[in-house]
Amino acid sequence: MQVEAVQYRDGVIEIIDQTLLPHEYFVLHITDLETLCEAIRSLRVRGAPAIGVAAAYGLRLTAERFARAGHADADLLRRELQAAATRLGATRPTARNLFWALERVVQVALAAPPSVAAIVGAVSAAATAVHVEDRAACAAIARHGAALLAQRAHILTHCNAGALATGGIGTALGIVYAAAAAGKDVHVYAGETRPLLQGARLTTWELERAGIPVTLLCDNAAASLLGRGAIDCAIVGADRIARNGDTANKVGTLSVALAAQRFGVPFYVAAPSSTIDLSLDSGAAIPIEERSAAEVDRGFGVRIAPEGIGVFNPAFDVTPADLITAIVHEGGIVRPPFREMLAASLDSPART
Amino acid sequence: MQVEAVQYRDGVIEIIDQTLLPHEYFVLHITDLETLCEAIRSLRVRGAPAIGVAAAYGLRLTAERFARAGHADADLLRRELQAAATRLGATRPTARNLFWALERVVQVALAAPPSVAAIVGAVSAAATAVHVEDRAACAAIARHGAALLAQRAHILTHCNAGALATGGIGTALGIVYAAAAAGKDVHVYAGETRPLLQGARLTTWELERAGIPVTLLCDNAAASLLGRGAIDCAIVGADRIARNGDTANKVGTLSVALAAQRFGVPFYVAAPSSTIDLSLDSGAAIPIEERSAAEVDRGFGVRIAPEGIGVFNPAFDVTPADLITAIVHEGGIVRPPFREMLAASLDSPART
Repeated sequence: MQVEAVQYRDGVIEIIDQTLLPHEYFVLHITDLETLCEAIRSLRVRGAPAIGVAAAYGLRLTAERFARAGHADADLLRRELQAAATRLGATRPTARNLFWALERVVQVALAAPPSVAAIVGAVSAAATAVHVEDRAACAAIARHGAALLAQRAHILTHCNAGALATGGIGTALGIVYAAAAAGKDVHVYAGETRPLLQGARLTTWELERAGIPVTLLCDNAAASLLGRGAIDCAIVGADRIARNGDTANKVGTLSVALAAQRFGVPFYVAAPSSTIDLSLDSGAAIPIEERSAAEVDRGFGVRIAPEGIGVFNPAFDVTPADLITAIVHEGGIVRPPFREMLAASLDSPART
Repeated sequence: MQVEAVQYRDGVIEIIDQTLLPHEYFVLHITDLETLCEAIRSLRVRGAPAIGVAAAYGLRLTAERFARAGHADADLLRRELQAAATRLGATRPTARNLFWALERVVQVALAAPPSVAAIVGAVSAAATAVHVEDRAACAAIARHGAALLAQRAHILTHCNAGALATGGIGTALGIVYAAAAAGKDVHVYAGETRPLLQGARLTTWELERAGIPVTLLCDNAAASLLGRGAIDCAIVGADRIARNGDTANKVGTLSVALAAQRFGVPFYVAAPSSTIDLSLDSGAAIPIEERSAAEVDRGFGVRIAPEGIGVFNPAFDVTPADLITAIVHEGGIVRPPFREMLAASLDSPART
C-alpha cells in the first residue's frame, strides 16, 4: 500500500512523523494550527508538495473549527484564515508550494459567498483539491518521466522526493515507481542528505518498502559515483523553480548537478507546476532557509564537533538552469531554453 | 604547543587516537606491529604523511625488537622487515606516502652492512629521517602556500590536512597556520567530511586549539558557500598525486573542486613530494580504497538507514588535474601544465 504523508479525516490532519523514520512509523493526529506549524518547522512533514497539502489542510482545519465553535461572522472567519495563512507561511521560506497552496485557499475563502457555511465548504473543497491535484500531478510526472529511463537504469537521487514528500506517489521517486511498474529494471542510488538524512532515512525506507533496489552513499561520494560511469541519470525534486529554470532544492543538489554535467550524465528535475514561481526572474531571488547549528554539530543525537565553533547550515541550494537537462512537471517534459519553454509549458491547455 | 600525531620514544610508537577526538585526547602506546596495523586500518592514525611516518616507525620497532630479543641473523632481520613492510602496506591502499616510506626504509635495511646492529641503526635513522623530513616539508609547504593568501582570507578545506595528518604542522592547515603567524586574518570553513567526520572532529579541534576561527558545514553545503562568493580559495591535502597532476584525496574533494571551478575560486592541493607518484600516468591508475558499510549506515553509533540496503563507501576520490589551480609541495608552488611541471619540480635542486 502506498505511503500517505498527509491525510485529512474527520477534522484531523494525519501526518506520518518523518523525524522518527525509519526506526518508528508513527502517525500524528493534528487538530490545531500551532501543532501543525511545529510539525512543518521540525520537518515532521517535509517535501515541498506535502507541505503545500498540509498547509491547505491547516486552513481547512481552521475553517471547520471556527464553524464547529458556532461562530457566524464570515468576515471574522476570513480574517482568521488570513492570520492562519500568515502563520503557516512563516514556518519555512523556500518551498513555493507552501505559498501557492495558502494563496489559493485564501483566495477561495475571499471569493466565497459571505456566510460561514459557504466559506467552510469552499475552503474544504479547495484544500482537498490541492491534495487531489498534487496526487494527479505526481502520477502525470511519473508517466512523463518514466519515458526518460532506459529499460535498465541506474538513477542517482538526493534527499527524498517520494510519496513522503508529496500528496501522491512522489516526483523523482514517482518516476522510478512508474518505470518499475512498467517492467523496467531500476536501481536507485540515494545520497544520505546531511544534515537531516532524508535520503538515508526516508528514500531508502520508501524504496525498500516498494521492493526497489537501493544503494546508500554519503553525499560527497556522488561525484565519484558519477565519474565512474555507474549512473544513467540523476533525478531530484524541487522546492522552487524560477522563471529561468534555476531550481532551489535540498542543499547538495547543486553538487550533484555540477558532477553530472562534468561527467555527461543527464540531470532531471521533477516537480509539480505549483513549484514554479514565474514571479522570480532567476534563482538569485529565491529565499534560502538557514537552519540551526544543532542539526549539523549534534545531528545524530551525538555532538560531533567541539563546542563554540560557527556553523553554516543552509537548507537548500540553487542549481543554475544551465546544469539542468529537463524539468518534468504534470504538463510534460520541458527542455531548455527554460526562460521561454517553462512559462509556455504552463500556458499549454493539455496539462496532464 | 603543536599537536604531534605520531612520535617514537624508547621503543614505543605514541599515536593520538584520532577516533576519540574531539571528545577525548588519548595517546596510544604501541609496541607491536599488529596493534600498529590495526591503528592504521581503523584510522586511529590517518592522513597520508602521518601514515607514512607511523609505518616507518613500525619498521624501526620491528628492527629494535629483533635486536633486543638477542637475534644475530642479519638475513632473518631483513626478511622480517620485508614481511613487516608487506603487512603495513596491506593496511590501506591509496596513500602514496605509506608505500614511499616503507620502500625507503626497506631499501636502507637491504643496503646496510650485514649485521643486526648495522641494520637496526640504519633502519632507525631512516625512520627518524622520514619523520624529520616530513616536518621540514610541512614547514616549507606552509611558507610557500602562505604567500598565496591575501591579508584577509576565507579558506575552504575538506577532511583534515593539519598537524594530525602529518609529521609536522600540516599541509593545507600548515599554510593557514603560517599565514596566521604572519599576521594575516584567516578564517577556515571546514567540510565535516562524512562518513568519519575528520573535518567536524579533527580540523575544528585543531583550529580552535590554535585560535583560528573556523566554521563547520556539511560537505554538501560547500558548493553553495562557494557560489555565494564567501570563499577566497580552497586548500586540501592529498593522498596520492599522479604524474599528470590528478589528485586522490578524501572522498568529497572532487565536489569541492568542481564547485570551485564553476564559481572561479582557486583550488590548491598541498602535500609533501612523497605523495607524488610519478609511476602513475594519471589518476585512473590510483587504487581507491572502499570501506565498510557500517561507516555510513551506523556512522554515529546510531543506525541511520534501514537494514539490508546496499552502501557505496569509497574513502577517496580523484580530482582531475584541470580543476587544480596549483600544487604546493616542499619544493615550491607548481602550476599547470602539471604533466611537465610536476616532474620537473622534483628534479630541482632547491627543494626547501
